[in-house]
Amino acid sequence: MRIGVLTGGGDCPGLNAVIRAVVRKGAGIYGYEFVGFRDGWKGPLEGLTMSLGIPEVRGILPRGGTILGSSRTNPYKIEGGVGRIRQNLADMGIDALVAIGGEDTLGVATQLHDQGVNVVGVPKTIDNDLNATDYTFGFDTAVNIAMEAIDRLHTTAESHHRALIVEVMGRHAGWIALHAGLAGGANVILIPEQRFSLERVCAYVESRFQSHYAPIIVIAEGAQPDEGEMVTLDKGLDAFGHVRLGGIGEWLAGQIEARTGKEARTTVLGHIQRGGTPTAFDRVLATRFGLHAIDVVHDEDWGKMVALQGTNIVRVPLAEATTELKTVPPSFYSEAEVFFG
Amino acid sequence: MRIGVLTGGGDCPGLNAVIRAVVRKGAGIYGYEFVGFRDGWKGPLEGLTMSLGIPEVRGILPRGGTILGSSRTNPYKIEGGVGRIRQNLADMGIDALVAIGGEDTLGVATQLHDQGVNVVGVPKTIDNDLNATDYTFGFDTAVNIAMEAIDRLHTTAESHHRALIVEVMGRHAGWIALHAGLAGGANVILIPEQRFSLERVCAYVESRFQSHYAPIIVIAEGAQPDEGEMVTLDKGLDAFGHVRLGGIGEWLAGQIEARTGKEARTTVLGHIQRGGTPTAFDRVLATRFGLHAIDVVHDEDWGKMVALQGTNIVRVPLAEATTELKTVPPSFYSEAEVFFG
Amino acid sequence: MRIGVLTGGGDCPGLNAVIRAVVRKGAGIYGYEFVGFRDGWKGPLEGLTMSLGIPEVRGILPRGGTILGSSRTNPYKIEGGVGRIRQNLADMGIDALVAIGGEDTLGVATQLHDQGVNVVGVPKTIDNDLNATDYTFGFDTAVNIAMEAIDRLHTTAESHHRALIVEVMGRHAGWIALHAGLAGGANVILIPEQRFSLERVCAYVESRFQSHYAPIIVIAEGAQPDEGEMVTLDKGLDAFGHVRLGGIGEWLAGQIEARTGKEARTTVLGHIQRGGTPTAFDRVLATRFGLHAIDVVHDEDWGKMVALQGTNIVRVPLAEATTELKTVPPSFYSEAEVFFG
Amino acid sequence: MRIGVLTGGGDCPGLNAVIRAVVRKGAGIYGYEFVGFRDGWKGPLEGLTMSLGIPEVRGILPRGGTILGSSRTNPYKIEGGVGRIRQNLADMGIDALVAIGGEDTLGVATQLHDQGVNVVGVPKTIDNDLNATDYTFGFDTAVNIAMEAIDRLHTTAESHHRALIVEVMGRHAGWIALHAGLAGGANVILIPEQRFSLERVCAYVESRFQSHYAPIIVIAEGAQPDEGEMVTLDKGLDAFGHVRLGGIGEWLAGQIEARTGKEARTTVLGHIQRGGTPTAFDRVLATRFGLHAIDVVHDEDWGKMVALQGTNIVRVPLAEATTELKTVPPSFYSEAEVFFG
Repeated sequence: MRIGVLTGGGDCPGLNAVIRAVVRKGAGIYGYEFVGFRDGWKGPLEGLTMSLGIPEVRGILPRGGTILGSSRTNPYKIEGGVGRIRQNLADMGIDALVAIGGEDTLGVATQLHDQGVNVVGVPKTIDNDLNATDYTFGFDTAVNIAMEAIDRLHTTAESHHRALIVEVMGRHAGWIALHAGLAGGANVILIPEQRFSLERVCAYVESRFQSHYAPIIVIAEGAQPDEGEMVTLDKGLDAFGHVRLGGIGEWLAGQIEARTGKEARTTVLGHIQRGGTPTAFDRVLATRFGLHAIDVVHDEDWGKMVALQGTNIVRVPLAEATTELKTVPPSFYSEAEVFFG
Repeated sequence: MRIGVLTGGGDCPGLNAVIRAVVRKGAGIYGYEFVGFRDGWKGPLEGLTMSLGIPEVRGILPRGGTILGSSRTNPYKIEGGVGRIRQNLADMGIDALVAIGGEDTLGVATQLHDQGVNVVGVPKTIDNDLNATDYTFGFDTAVNIAMEAIDRLHTTAESHHRALIVEVMGRHAGWIALHAGLAGGANVILIPEQRFSLERVCAYVESRFQSHYAPIIVIAEGAQPDEGEMVTLDKGLDAFGHVRLGGIGEWLAGQIEARTGKEARTTVLGHIQRGGTPTAFDRVLATRFGLHAIDVVHDEDWGKMVALQGTNIVRVPLAEATTELKTVPPSFYSEAEVFFG
Repeated sequence: MRIGVLTGGGDCPGLNAVIRAVVRKGAGIYGYEFVGFRDGWKGPLEGLTMSLGIPEVRGILPRGGTILGSSRTNPYKIEGGVGRIRQNLADMGIDALVAIGGEDTLGVATQLHDQGVNVVGVPKTIDNDLNATDYTFGFDTAVNIAMEAIDRLHTTAESHHRALIVEVMGRHAGWIALHAGLAGGANVILIPEQRFSLERVCAYVESRFQSHYAPIIVIAEGAQPDEGEMVTLDKGLDAFGHVRLGGIGEWLAGQIEARTGKEARTTVLGHIQRGGTPTAFDRVLATRFGLHAIDVVHDEDWGKMVALQGTNIVRVPLAEATTELKTVPPSFYSEAEVFFG
Repeated sequence: MRIGVLTGGGDCPGLNAVIRAVVRKGAGIYGYEFVGFRDGWKGPLEGLTMSLGIPEVRGILPRGGTILGSSRTNPYKIEGGVGRIRQNLADMGIDALVAIGGEDTLGVATQLHDQGVNVVGVPKTIDNDLNATDYTFGFDTAVNIAMEAIDRLHTTAESHHRALIVEVMGRHAGWIALHAGLAGGANVILIPEQRFSLERVCAYVESRFQSHYAPIIVIAEGAQPDEGEMVTLDKGLDAFGHVRLGGIGEWLAGQIEARTGKEARTTVLGHIQRGGTPTAFDRVLATRFGLHAIDVVHDEDWGKMVALQGTNIVRVPLAEATTELKTVPPSFYSEAEVFFG
C-alpha cells in the first residue's frame, strides 16, 4: 500500500511524533510506502509532496512543529477542489490518507471519506476541546509552559504590589487556563465558559492587596466579562491608524488599574504555548496515536480516528471530531474555585 | 471535625500539592481543623505533630518533597504500636486521618480502618504500579526527568561511538522505563516484567554501530537478564572491603564492553527522579486527589481512597491499594518494540 | 557588629542568594548579628525589620524574589527622611548597612555614605546596564527565559506564515534583546540604542516570507522607530475609555500587518523575565557578590560596592553605580547584524 | 578562499553554534567557501568531507553535539599522517583550517601551523580548565545541568535520612563541581585539586544527620581521598569477571555507609552533562568565538585562537591552548568552604 500523510491547522507539539510513529510502524512492520503531503490539504490539492520514509523521520520525535508543514486550506471552499484531490491521489497511486488535524482538517477528512476516499484521522487540538477523546497531544505541553510562567510570577507577586495577569490560549474552551491556573496556584481563573464579574474580580484584587500578597490572574483569551461590562476588542489599528489594541488580558489590566488604583501588568504568552519540544505525556500520546492510526489503516477500517479513553487508545468514527466542543464542565470549574478569593 | 494528615514512604513530587488541597478545602469550605503528623506513621505513634492550616500550606504547591516529613515506620511491626496510635488520636481529639502513601502506608491505613479508625487514603507511588488508578502523581514528573536525560544523550550518540545506558527507577514495574524510553526515542527498553536476552541486546548494539548511530538503552533498575545469564548484584562492599558495586546499568555496560569491544557508559539517575517541582499533570492530579479526599472525609465514607479513572476522580476501597501490582502488559511493551532494533 | 541588610527596586533573580551569602559568612565566620530591613529604604525609614540569621536564609538560594521585600521608597524625597533613618539605625544599634539594589537604591546609599553612614553596596540590575561591572546577576536568567521563548517560536515560524515578535525588557539598554536574540537565532533584533527603520524591517519581513521561513523579531521595550515614523504609545485607556493600548511590540505587529499584509503576532514576556529560580551563573555571581560584600564590611571599607571584572570580584566606589548607563556598543550590535536579513 | 572546518574531542554544547557563526559570517560577509571535515582530524586525514554552507547550518544553533562528528584521531600518532593531511588539503584546494577542539585537537593544530599549514583555533573544553580564556562554552550548560540535579535532591534531603552524592565531570579540575555545588547549595564539594579527608567528610555527615537535614555532597570524578585512604578504582570487570565497579561517587557512598551506618545514595550524571541544548551564555560565547575566528582567518593571522577576556573576545597564540591546566585556585575553593560543615 501507498499511504499519504498530512498535517493541517495550527501548530501543536507532538505532530512530528505522530508522523514518526505512523512511518516507523507502517514502513517497518507493514511494509507500506509513504508520501508526505505538504501544508495540509494544500498538499493533495496542488500535488505538493515530499519523500517520507524512515530516514526522514529520524530525530524528529522531540521537535515541535511538523516536518510536513501546515495550512488552513479547505478544498471544499475551492471550486473543483475535491475533484483535484481525487485526481491527484489517483495519479500518484495513493491508497489511503492519514490526516492529522483539528476540527477543520478532520471535517474535510470526514467528507472525503463519505465520498469514498480511504481516510484515517488523528485528532489534534492544543485546546483539548474535543469530545471524543480524554486528552489531545500538545495540551499538556501548553499547560506546562503556562504553569512555568505563573511559577515565575509568584516571585514578583510576593515582593511587589502589582496585580499580575497571564493571558493564555483558549478561544472557546478554558482547559488550558483551568489546568495551568490550578497547577500554578493562580488566585483567579477566568474562562470562556463562564462570564466573569469585573466587579467581583476587582473586589478580590483589593482584598488581596490588603493581605500583602499581590494577586495572579489567569485569563483565557476568549473569556468575557458580564454583559453589562461587555466590550468589543477591536483587534487591529486604532482610530489614529497606528496603534494596535491588546487582547482581553490588556483590557482587564486597564480596568483593574482604573477601578482599584493599583498597578496591573499583563503577560501574553501567545505562540510560545504551541511551540518547542513536547512533554513526555504528549510524546507518548502522540506516538501511541500514530501506532494505532496505522493499525486502523492496516485493518482498512476507513473513516475512523484514534482517541484516548482512560489509558487505552480506541477507534471512533471520524465524524465525532466535528461534533460539539468539549468545554469545561461547571462542576470542574467549581472545584477550582476553592482556591480563589 | 479535627483531621490528622500524614505522608509515608518514599519521596514523590506532588505530596505537598495533596496536603495543600486537603487543607484549603477542608479548612476553607468545611471549617475543619487540621493536625500535621510528622514522618509518616511515626507521627501518630510517637505524638509528633506540627501545626497545619492555611498559612502553613501557602506556597508549597510547586515544591517537591513533603512539609510533613516521611518515614517507613510500620506500627504493626512495633509491639503495642497500634494501641499507642489509637490512644494518641483519642488524646488529641482526632476524628479522622488522611493518609497519603504507597502500598505500605495504605496497608496500615486499611488495617486501622478495619479496627475502627476513621481513615481516608490518597495513593502515592512514583512507579505508577497501582491497579486501582489509571495514574499516580509523581510518575509524570519522573518520566519527564528521565526523558530529558535521554534527550541529552542523543546528542552524544550522534557524534560519538559509545553505547549509552540510562538506569531509571522501577524495581518491579517498568512504567517509567517504558514511558521515558518511548518519549525519549530510546533504541532498547528493558523492564522487570520481561527478562532480556543479553545476546540479543549485544547483537543489536553491534548492528547499530555499523549504521553509525550509537545506541541508547533505557533499563529499569529491576530488569534482569535471561536465567542463563543471571547475575547476583551484591550491592555493598566488594571482596576487598572497599568498593561498592554498581547496579544493573553498570553491569550491562560491563557486559557490552566485554562482548562487543565497544565502549559503554551508564548514567544512574537515582533520586533526582523523585525530587524537585512536579509537572502540571502531577500538580493537577495531586490537587484533585486532595480535594476529593477531603470530600470523602466530609461524607464520612471511611475506608476509601481516591483514584483516577479516565478524567474522573473516583472512590475505591482502601484495600485495593494493596492488591496485585499493576505491571506493564505484554501488549503495551510490544507496541514499543516497533522502535527497537 | 550589628549589620542591617536591605533590597530595593525591581525584582531580580539572585537577590536571595546575595542575602544568604552575606549572612552565612557574616554570622558564621565573622560572628556578626544581622537585622533584615523590609521593603527597601522603607525599612530603615519606618523601622520595619525582620529577624535575619542562618535559619532564615536556609533554602532560599534557588528562590527568586527577596525574602526582605522591596520598594522604590527614596528617603531623600521624603521630608526628614534621612534624619529618621539615621535615628532608627542609632536606636537599633546598627553599625553598618549592606544595600542591595540598582541605581536608585545605591544612589541613596552613596548619599548616606557621604553623610557618614557606614554603607556597603551590591549592584543589581536585570538590564545589565551598569558600567562598573562586567555583569549583574539576574541578567543571565532573563536572557535564558527570553531565549527559551524564541526557541519555541522557531517551531511555529517553520510551519506557518506569520511574523513573530517577542517584546523583552530593556527601556534604555538592549542587552537582554541582543543576547536573547543572538542565543535564540532571531532574524531581527531591535534595541533602544539605535532607532530602527520600519521600512527596512518590513522589507526584510517580505523577503523572508518569499524564502518560506517566517521571521522572528526580538524587540526591547524601549526600542524606537526612526524619527519620521515616531509614535507616542499612550499606555492606559484609549479614547473610548475602556481599552488599554499595547507596547512597542504590539505597535510593530500592527505596522507590519498594515504594510505587508502578512499576519504578525506578539508575545510580551513581561514580568516572567524577572521571576523564578536563577540560573547557575546568577546564583554563583550573586553568592560571590554576597561573600565579598561582607568582606568589605569586615574591612570597614565603607562607601564601596562589589563588582565583577573578568572572573574576579573587585571593589569600586559606590558612586560608580550611578554614573552613565552601560549601553550596547555599536560594534557589538554590528557583530550580531551578520545574522539579520 | 576555501576554508575547512573540523571539530575534535569530546562532546560539548555550543559546537554547532561555533560552526554556524563561522559559516554565516564567512560565507555571508567574506564570500568564502567551506568544506566540512568529518570526525575531527580523521576528516582531513582520510578525506572525509561533507558540504557546509548556509543551508547546512540552518537551525543548528540550539542543538547539542556537532553536525561534523568528532573523534580523538591524532595524525601525529599515525605514520605518515601529517603528510596525508597536507596532501589532502592541497588536493582539495583548502586555503585554511578552522579547528575547534580541546588540548589534543589544538595541539595538532599548533604543530600543523608550525609546519606551515594555515590554521585558526577555537578552544573547547567542558571542564573550563584552559588558562588562556576566562570561560569556554559548554561549561555553563554542564554546571546548570548538575545544579538542577542538586536542586532536585534537596527535596529528598529534607524529607528523608540519606546522604546524597552527585558525581560530576572533572578529571583534573573541579570547576564544574565547585560551580554546581555553589549554585546548588551543596554541603560538601570535593575536587581533584585538593585531596579530601574521608574522616572529616564522615564526621560532617554524622553531624548533619543530628540536625535533621541530610547532607548533599558534590564530588568531581577525579577527586581523591587522602593518601592513607587511597583506593584504586579498577574500572572494568571485577574478580568474578561479570560486575563492573562504580566510580569515586559509589566508592564514597560505600565508605559513608560502612563508617557511619547511614544510608548513602549516588547519582552519576555522566554524559547527560555534555549533551542537549546549550544555555544562552554558551550559545552567545560560542557564536562570538565563531564570528571572531573567521575574522582571524580574514586577517590571515594564522596560528591564533580566540579567547574570552572579561567581556571581550581576543586572539592568543594557539600554543596557549596546550600550556598548563587552569585548576581551581585554593582561594576560590576556600570561599566556597564557608558553606560547608
